[in-house]
Amino acid sequence: MNDNLDILKNANISIVNDEISRIFFNEISEDYDQIIDGTDKLLLPGFINTHTHVPMTIFRGLGDDMKDRLTRLLFPLENSCLNDEIVHASSLLSLSEMLLSGTTCFADMYTFTDATARASNELGIRAFIGQGITDERSGEQLNADHGFELFENFIEKYRNDPLINGALAPHSVYMSSEPLLQRCRELSDKYEVPFLIHLAEQPWEADPYLEEHGSVVKYLQNIGALNNRFIGAHGILVSDEDMKILANVGASISHCPAGNSKSGRPIAPIHEYMQEGVNITLATDGPMSGNHMDMMSVMNCAPKMQKVKYQNRALCPASEILKMATINGAKALNIDHLVGSVEVGKKADLMVVNPQTLNMLPLYDYYAAIVYAMQPNNIQHVFVNGDLKVKDSKLVHTTEEDVIQKFSVAYDFVEAESRELLKKATQSE
Amino acid sequence: MNDNLDILKNANISIVNDEISRIFFNEISEDYDQIIDGTDKLLLPGFINTHTHVPMTIFRGLGDDMKDRLTRLLFPLENSCLNDEIVHASSLLSLSEMLLSGTTCFADMYTFTDATARASNELGIRAFIGQGITDERSGEQLNADHGFELFENFIEKYRNDPLINGALAPHSVYMSSEPLLQRCRELSDKYEVPFLIHLAEQPWEADPYLEEHGSVVKYLQNIGALNNRFIGAHGILVSDEDMKILANVGASISHCPAGNSKSGRPIAPIHEYMQEGVNITLATDGPMSGNHMDMMSVMNCAPKMQKVKYQNRALCPASEILKMATINGAKALNIDHLVGSVEVGKKADLMVVNPQTLNMLPLYDYYAAIVYAMQPNNIQHVFVNGDLKVKDSKLVHTTEEDVIQKFSVAYDFVEAESRELLKKATQSE
Repeated sequence: MNDNLDILKNANISIVNDEISRIFFNEISEDYDQIIDGTDKLLLPGFINTHTHVPMTIFRGLGDDMKDRLTRLLFPLENSCLNDEIVHASSLLSLSEMLLSGTTCFADMYTFTDATARASNELGIRAFIGQGITDERSGEQLNADHGFELFENFIEKYRNDPLINGALAPHSVYMSSEPLLQRCRELSDKYEVPFLIHLAEQPWEADPYLEEHGSVVKYLQNIGALNNRFIGAHGILVSDEDMKILANVGASISHCPAGNSKSGRPIAPIHEYMQEGVNITLATDGPMSGNHMDMMSVMNCAPKMQKVKYQNRALCPASEILKMATINGAKALNIDHLVGSVEVGKKADLMVVNPQTLNMLPLYDYYAAIVYAMQPNNIQHVFVNGDLKVKDSKLVHTTEEDVIQKFSVAYDFVEAESRELLKKATQSE
Repeated sequence: MNDNLDILKNANISIVNDEISRIFFNEISEDYDQIIDGTDKLLLPGFINTHTHVPMTIFRGLGDDMKDRLTRLLFPLENSCLNDEIVHASSLLSLSEMLLSGTTCFADMYTFTDATARASNELGIRAFIGQGITDERSGEQLNADHGFELFENFIEKYRNDPLINGALAPHSVYMSSEPLLQRCRELSDKYEVPFLIHLAEQPWEADPYLEEHGSVVKYLQNIGALNNRFIGAHGILVSDEDMKILANVGASISHCPAGNSKSGRPIAPIHEYMQEGVNITLATDGPMSGNHMDMMSVMNCAPKMQKVKYQNRALCPASEILKMATINGAKALNIDHLVGSVEVGKKADLMVVNPQTLNMLPLYDYYAAIVYAMQPNNIQHVFVNGDLKVKDSKLVHTTEEDVIQKFSVAYDFVEAESRELLKKATQSE
């Protein structure tokens, strides 16, 4: 995975400290501490998941086929059920699923960010943890000022951490005022961190901006919120002009086809975005949205949705999809000089895939096999920043049993309240 | 999974010979040869995959994003590359993937049926192996008469086999003449086996029948091809009237959303079929179509496509999807008195699921967890006809290594020719 989509056969790669130091084809003669045999395996850059709400595994499967679940179930639960311990345990579960399935970096939008950062640290995954900021009280945040304070504390605390990064995460234009969005932009520029927001997802989202601005994207442009640190999740209900604006400012889209489809939303016009030159990345969304947190489920879903939308089986070929899941994610987070491809000088965020399995053979075309056939069981080793974080399909720094045990304790705290709210919401239908 | 969708907690089940003999909640006091501890596990009926071409793993991943692949690549390859050994090795690969992911029964349409039957027998899966019949030469079949001869030989050979069943599989109305279809219907009725066909999949498929009959479904009705042994795969381009006809005769549809979407086809109107009372089943299609042969990929894709099509997140809830993947498949094959649910007196075609995993927890709603979150790694044990065929996620009668070894030998025979044809087809674009 480099700009030329080169496929290097029988290559060796050296990792020194956190970096890929050498790619070579001759015999291995130099000194090394550890050697990993990649015979008949594939080496890929780690997946970059650009839109998640990792602590929400605690609610996964709740009201899955229910109308207006967001306002009827999720917002109330987030205000009543969550605390630092629950977010920590729930983040650990999601992040373990993600790391084991080859995701080496993610961008999150949620609350109790320190708990997610600790979970990320324990597992060793590269993280952009966005402080959810809204005008009203939400989760840990009492009001917008408190949200900004939490953000700046987070930035200060993790300033020297090689893997943990902050981000601004105003929820959406409908939950964030103009001054709030502008302050997010200022801080995003000041600290050089991503600006994450739900964008053009809801049909009624644009209504307040239509008359004065013409669209949500134009509103965001007019208030100065757009630049190359802007990552809009979903981006479904956009015009050609909106796409041109996003392309011009170098903004990115987090495409979440598995979550969008489960929510019954229209298919995002990814093929058109690509033609306009917008940087398209892939994401699972939260565990309540698409339920799977592995990027293979998303890579599999994305091209199918585009082929259906445009009734053309040749659109969005597998190689483009793999770019979206790797280097395009790095571009969106402005870390493409560091990760997103297998190239000398980059940080070693990598996965070793075993394709010699029932579900993945044969290998006529590596890209097709990766995008259409690969499943989590194919991921054998995962490196983040030069260190093995998954070895032989097991977590290096903890065990699945321990993660599940901690999650179960947290689940016992929220289950009764979640079920009660679900019952009330169902009765009111 | 019974008609009431009862969820039995803390139930025990006894299997005597091939049958579920008892479901009980008190202590286990009777004699038994073997006990399987299902604490914290789920017991489900095995999946029934009603439309496959299992020998096609040998071509999986070939020309995946290519236009007109069927006529430019597949038909030529099927006539030049296949033989009994290749079909056997390739069927073994697909069927192993299927059995390990909880599929206990499948209905196939292809050629060299005896090779697929032997592979089924070796693994111990319940099979309906449809003899592909077309007017022209195709695979093993030299002409239609030869195809019918092969079918009757197959029926004779496997007459007393408890798990191997035959079926008639005329490819489609565009590759099967009216007399051929009528003879298929006669033999389907005579031997009481399924009549499998690709239906209303291609936009041009109906053209020759529009004037005289009005639609492909009406043509099939007019020539007497429809009854409750008829299973139409895809059924995408149909009218309300077509659906009513299919409902009235008790015909079934094999819905293949993963394959259909990868081919850029419109989304089949499954929600409308359900409202008309048509029996909807789920299927992977062949390994070239959707690439995954596990039914979880299909169960996950199907509701998302319907929710997108009708822009309604409440449509096709998880419980309906699980019915499609189990009891509805049994109804389509007219074996719902034998399998498709966990009920006393039925054959024990069952799977034990371990949901205590990173990807599947928590369990607010069993149906949602099964349909939206379960993956092949969750399947622990699989029974077919009362016998364990998968134990602790391993095949009982062979090993994955052996299956892959045999497949690799077969692949070495076809790879060069397949690649050569792909190259030619790509150059002619």
